[in-house]
Amino acid sequence: MPRYLKGESSMEQRLSIITLGVSDLKKSRTFFDALGWKVASEDQSEEIVVYDLISMSLALYPLDKLQEDAKVKVERQKYSSFTIAYNVRSQEEVDVTLEEAVKAGGELVKPAEKAFWGGYSGYFADPDGNLWEVAHNPFAPLGPKGEFQWNGF
Amino acid sequence: MPRYLKGESSMEQRLSIITLGVSDLKKSRTFFDALGWKVASEDQSEEIVVYDLISMSLALYPLDKLQEDAKVKVERQKYSSFTIAYNVRSQEEVDVTLEEAVKAGGELVKPAEKAFWGGYSGYFADPDGNLWEVAHNPFAPLGPKGEFQWNGF
Repeated sequence: MPRYLKGESSMEQRLSIITLGVSDLKKSRTFFDALGWKVASEDQSEEIVVYDLISMSLALYPLDKLQEDAKVKVERQKYSSFTIAYNVRSQEEVDVTLEEAVKAGGELVKPAEKAFWGGYSGYFADPDGNLWEVAHNPFAPLGPKGEFQWNGF
Repeated sequence: MPRYLKGESSMEQRLSIITLGVSDLKKSRTFFDALGWKVASEDQSEEIVVYDLISMSLALYPLDKLQEDAKVKVERQKYSSFTIAYNVRSQEEVDVTLEEAVKAGGELVKPAEKAFWGGYSGYFADPDGNLWEVAHNPFAPLGPKGEFQWNGF
């Protein structure tokens, strides 16, 4: 039975798609393709590019179309006001991933360093300035497929 | 064996944490609490608020600290340049969810309507202007826990 029919809040603790508003769909796609990511479908890939992740998807969509769809006005910014963390299994893998992101066309925003919380992390920006943190957190081991939960999987 | 040791790109097709840079941590938390979401831990909740979702987490973190951590400058904007889609199982549930988001302190950005792609969707903004799309997509049924994949679960 849906939660709202039981008198509970209907909003379950999950999300379905993160859609990044991009300035140049082909250029943005080239970046994720270079990282080795595979699109979910080529059918509408001139309009929207989608990557299926674990239990959710990441979409690239032209920012002007995103604004049209949501009926809002958004100013383009150099860097995003949110970050996407990509956690890995070792410190070495942080370095390798940052290096590959730069090779793929990303910008090294902050070289990896020991973090105050006991891990190791650095940041790159994708072609639209979205901030990606690549992190190794020894206190939150990943699940078998790379699943993440705050207190470890 | 890690992918990069096999000569493949090391970046797996997944993400760990979406961190939203917020202007008032308590106010933002109040919103998600009102939606019925449960924090992963109260331990550091004065500094960062984390909700475990399916196989990933959503974090709320003061925007000034986010900037400090990534060593970048970000201007606050009315609306985000990305959207978070929350897909539900029926058209009725879209309406109910949008109503509850507004009751919790969100802004109705676009009332739900039939979408050109054959579904039904609307948008609300959370207290920091992040755009959330609540959608019913009859062509992409959710998994048993609400998991999403572009071509259906």
